[in-house]
Amino acid sequence: MLEKVKMEYTEYFAEVVQVLSTRGCLLASWKNRPDQVNAMTIGWGMIGTIWGRPVFQVLVRPSRYTADLLKKEPFFSVNVLPKALDAAVMLCGSRSGRNHDKLAEVNLTAVAGAAHGAPVIEQSVIHYECHIVESNQFAPEAMVPDIRDGAYPSGDYHRIYWGQILDCRVNKSAMNTLFQE
Amino acid sequence: MLEKVKMEYTEYFAEVVQVLSTRGCLLASWKNRPDQVNAMTIGWGMIGTIWGRPVFQVLVRPSRYTADLLKKEPFFSVNVLPKALDAAVMLCGSRSGRNHDKLAEVNLTAVAGAAHGAPVIEQSVIHYECHIVESNQFAPEAMVPDIRDGAYPSGDYHRIYWGQILDCRVNKSAMNTLFQE
Repeated sequence: MLEKVKMEYTEYFAEVVQVLSTRGCLLASWKNRPDQVNAMTIGWGMIGTIWGRPVFQVLVRPSRYTADLLKKEPFFSVNVLPKALDAAVMLCGSRSGRNHDKLAEVNLTAVAGAAHGAPVIEQSVIHYECHIVESNQFAPEAMVPDIRDGAYPSGDYHRIYWGQILDCRVNKSAMNTLFQE
Repeated sequence: MLEKVKMEYTEYFAEVVQVLSTRGCLLASWKNRPDQVNAMTIGWGMIGTIWGRPVFQVLVRPSRYTADLLKKEPFFSVNVLPKALDAAVMLCGSRSGRNHDKLAEVNLTAVAGAAHGAPVIEQSVIHYECHIVESNQFAPEAMVPDIRDGAYPSGDYHRIYWGQILDCRVNKSAMNTLFQE
């Protein structure tokens, strides 16, 4: 199933951001190693270099089940799925893993990534396997009012996770499926 | 001097990260509008999408002169300079703008960006003009020890600035000068 090869973490950035910002990606984390995995849908994220390390930054509200899981196992993957699996990505954004085995319900499967930090979704075209090296909360004091009022009317500010990219891979022959069914 | 055209904020990501992580970029901010500008050298940064907005995240230690300037005027630009100007970038990282007019000393010039938020360096090949919409400090509690001890032995944790990208531009005909003199 996995036909992925290693890639540079700066490759395919425009494609990844386009999918992330329009359809969303799946953030996968461990419920219980080695075979119980949760996934949540994310639409925001950043990639870059900090502390001389490649980093993928994701945001999770502390009320989310994923936030509980990341406390126990500080690893996650970001998975970019083909357009044909949009419905699955959307469904993972509408249920909580607290009382659902979301991946099974949408016919996705996960395996341990090559760095053995995080689970990765087998059906993804691109994935980043990450280790959380720092986390923090957004601070409302310094936030511009239109974001504070628009994104956080009930005060549930995101937690910010800086995940060092341990490994990232692409299925090059499937790149065309990111935007075509 | 400026022969730049608008670009998508996700373009040229690999090139920008390569320059940022190996030679550094210049973060420019206002000392005093409309003509007094400071620049500091940065080697870390991230690009992505948060709150449905394009964002460039930069890091500045609170002890730096730039941190004082960003408090007064919450705008900055990130400037990617040609390889031939490496010495200028390095010099901007070795002096404080508190007692130097760094740009004049290294023969660089700045003008207001197209969005009139931040000053931009005229000699840069690519620049991002940004408005700070959120800022926060790194939290030592959640940081892995090797980063905490390696990057912050004296406890001077970076402040994190999320800058909404108002405008970003490239001088396409000069792209080859990023890596060749």
